[in-house]
Amino acid sequence: MEASLADLKQRLAEIDDLQRTQLLLEWDTEVWMPPSGESSRAAHLTTLETIVHERQIDDRIGELLDDVEPYAASLPGDADDACLIRAARRLWEKKRRIPTDLAAEIAGAQVESYQAWVKAREEENFAGFRPSLERMLELQRRWIECFVPYDDPYDVVLDNFEEGTKTEDVRRIFAALQPEITALVAEHANEADEDEFLRGPFAIASQETLSRELIERFGANWDAFRIDLAVHPFAAAVGLRDIRLTTRYETSDLSSLFTAMHECGHGLYEWGSAPSLERTPLQGGEASSALHESQSRLWENVVGRSLPFWRWFYPRVQEAFPDILADVSLERFHRAVNRPHRSFIRVDADETSYGLHVILRFELEQELLSGRLAVKDLPDAWNARFRELIGLEVPNDTVGVLQDTHWASGLFGYFPTYLLGSVLSVQIWGKAREALPEVEQQIERGEFTELHTWLRENLYSLGSKFSPPETIERVVGGPIDPQPYLRYLRGKLTALAAS
Amino acid sequence: MEASLADLKQRLAEIDDLQRTQLLLEWDTEVWMPPSGESSRAAHLTTLETIVHERQIDDRIGELLDDVEPYAASLPGDADDACLIRAARRLWEKKRRIPTDLAAEIAGAQVESYQAWVKAREEENFAGFRPSLERMLELQRRWIECFVPYDDPYDVVLDNFEEGTKTEDVRRIFAALQPEITALVAEHANEADEDEFLRGPFAIASQETLSRELIERFGANWDAFRIDLAVHPFAAAVGLRDIRLTTRYETSDLSSLFTAMHECGHGLYEWGSAPSLERTPLQGGEASSALHESQSRLWENVVGRSLPFWRWFYPRVQEAFPDILADVSLERFHRAVNRPHRSFIRVDADETSYGLHVILRFELEQELLSGRLAVKDLPDAWNARFRELIGLEVPNDTVGVLQDTHWASGLFGYFPTYLLGSVLSVQIWGKAREALPEVEQQIERGEFTELHTWLRENLYSLGSKFSPPETIERVVGGPIDPQPYLRYLRGKLTALAAS
Repeated sequence: MEASLADLKQRLAEIDDLQRTQLLLEWDTEVWMPPSGESSRAAHLTTLETIVHERQIDDRIGELLDDVEPYAASLPGDADDACLIRAARRLWEKKRRIPTDLAAEIAGAQVESYQAWVKAREEENFAGFRPSLERMLELQRRWIECFVPYDDPYDVVLDNFEEGTKTEDVRRIFAALQPEITALVAEHANEADEDEFLRGPFAIASQETLSRELIERFGANWDAFRIDLAVHPFAAAVGLRDIRLTTRYETSDLSSLFTAMHECGHGLYEWGSAPSLERTPLQGGEASSALHESQSRLWENVVGRSLPFWRWFYPRVQEAFPDILADVSLERFHRAVNRPHRSFIRVDADETSYGLHVILRFELEQELLSGRLAVKDLPDAWNARFRELIGLEVPNDTVGVLQDTHWASGLFGYFPTYLLGSVLSVQIWGKAREALPEVEQQIERGEFTELHTWLRENLYSLGSKFSPPETIERVVGGPIDPQPYLRYLRGKLTALAAS
Repeated sequence: MEASLADLKQRLAEIDDLQRTQLLLEWDTEVWMPPSGESSRAAHLTTLETIVHERQIDDRIGELLDDVEPYAASLPGDADDACLIRAARRLWEKKRRIPTDLAAEIAGAQVESYQAWVKAREEENFAGFRPSLERMLELQRRWIECFVPYDDPYDVVLDNFEEGTKTEDVRRIFAALQPEITALVAEHANEADEDEFLRGPFAIASQETLSRELIERFGANWDAFRIDLAVHPFAAAVGLRDIRLTTRYETSDLSSLFTAMHECGHGLYEWGSAPSLERTPLQGGEASSALHESQSRLWENVVGRSLPFWRWFYPRVQEAFPDILADVSLERFHRAVNRPHRSFIRVDADETSYGLHVILRFELEQELLSGRLAVKDLPDAWNARFRELIGLEVPNDTVGVLQDTHWASGLFGYFPTYLLGSVLSVQIWGKAREALPEVEQQIERGEFTELHTWLRENLYSLGSKFSPPETIERVVGGPIDPQPYLRYLRGKLTALAAS
């Protein structure tokens, strides 16, 4: 048995090595690769994915799992090895349903489709992206068919990002959220522009200094972290102690500060895994995109748009941009970075209306995958539903259906985890505040150590040991619940209106 | 047969994908990786090397090679497929001698040994590096023993960088060079410092602009090239159209300009491979480090230290640094960047004395690998031989035996190719000048297109199709010959002395 366990662990470690190598290539593709490197990069990623997949579905892993099953059964359910064996079996059984050819084809098609999307978006030309999107959808459908029988085709793709959550669960949660969020936006959105000061210009060097200060204060260090530029910011854990954040700067707004906090949250989650989980499928928050997003949102929004936070940080921002902010009060600034407003771009949306952007995508994804909606009709469907949900007329596809990279990259089923993450972030924050009665006073002093430590001990260190529902149960004592999130939004907006 | 050929090519293409992935990881390690990423990076490289090696030695490749051998024999010897099959067989037979464990162990040990070397060098403490160097040597000896019987253990490591060249050939060439170079240095070295203006300070932003201009002028473009910072500059072809150059800047000298030209030469070589060789073992100049170095040296020295070149470029450099260079004449500047001087650091050495630094290392490597010299005695041996060859007392190991990264990275047998490259660069330049009678006038106008095109058509496009001796024969019409190089040095130094 010991030899089988060691063999299994070695195989899983090597798969992890290859997957983190893939992450580095993907990071490099977005951050540094010269444009004409695209074709060789697609070949490299296809080859890596082929090898990863072949290794994931190796018959020998099944035999080793059978060998170690009695040992796993003898362990407490929360022992690292028990969790590892459970996760390895799930992964093996899941991946064996997918032909290696299909996995490799998806990996290669993503690079090409991404480039087509970039071009179509620049040219405001959905037709240029349509063939690629049709191909990505076709590949997704072939993926889904590997999991027959299923209750709902969307369950299959959702499972790639959120094991244990069903489409029906998401529908129920979103059904509770949507009318309430719509009402909050209607009540609090202020279309008259009182917030012109948020348009800068803000010198990029100063934004960079402030971003780095935030990341350091939140507890990251440059021995393990980097931050670089990317058109679409993301975070990648190339290793347990090799965390790559990306961001972007515009002189015309301060969204880089929120991006830095957001990506830092992802990075801290990955960085916080227990060392015993290194080079296993349990390292990092891979199992649950919603839990991952809960941490980017917790740091970006729950902390980073709170009044205590800005009591500490606003003087620094004022100091960095005295020409623009010297005469803007803390209260006015805080209101501006929280005010609901109807807008086209998801990633630029305010905290409140953000959820509506996600719900739109969740609905359209289901229709696309079920075949009820054809790709050629997607822009019209987008614009019609956008009008209903957000109340704006989309002027062109670049600020409409072409704005996100996800579908181009084959990420179907990912969007809902953004809003689930926001919901969870408030539940987790509630628990942290119970445990740390001084946390808001600490934040007001720019002290984040206790919060970071609590999150690491209670969430990050678990990595992907447990299924997401079990992790959520352990951390917040119950399932995902939209009500605390709605109370949080309502409370914040009411207070802002009164301020 | 066709199926076998396609299968063989697919296997070789995937191996190439993995090797270029390794290159990207190595590039990232030197350029961007946060320090604590080291341990996971070592694991990733070890796993990749294991997979590469397993695939290289796969029995199936041998069977496929047998299948396609009659086809290869039916082709002209210079047909791509004939060359590919020859190279694939050589590689397969060679790699099969090495156990995968050993290949993987070397890959992993390099990362650790490199870190130990960095630390030892910073601390001027050879003892801190000694255990790592002993381990690297031990691994090299195990590698060498895989190739029993051999005439000379050094032949085995030399073959990793210069197929078809024997230690005896190198000894003979170096024996012709050493006394002549020593005499030239003795005659022309000027220890009185007339060249203080070369110590700057030179603003780094201006050096960067000049470096990029040189790279563009030589024919590279930023669609395919990048240039980033690294402590030890190098070039890496991550893909046929994805060329990563690295360099470094010091305010205290202008060596960055020569580094840029040097690394650009490596990059142009890789970039110039015929597209038909992409994703095969024939892509790029892997087969011959000497030919590779001939191109870095051709652009850096033969072009980049010539009077025609500086007639074009010196006014730009003067314009960039008017405070320092306004009153320095072209002739004086040109003399300064060519003047022999005795110095400790190989990479900072002048063109003439550079060869002596290489010869020192070639001698010591042979003694280390044969076991005649123990690692503990290496610093003394270095210092004694340095005194004889260069005529200086080494003050500490950081500017002595610890200055180079090669041994720390397991690169034994690499050093001699530097000097062979310099020798070849002059032979190739001779052929180019015969073919392009206007080339010096073009260089004087900052025009490099014809030279670059000639080199691409006559050398770069060949990639590694032929064995290095055959490529050299094709390009210069004979074997490596030290005499043109000696005539070139002598001619240049005599002209400088008269100027």
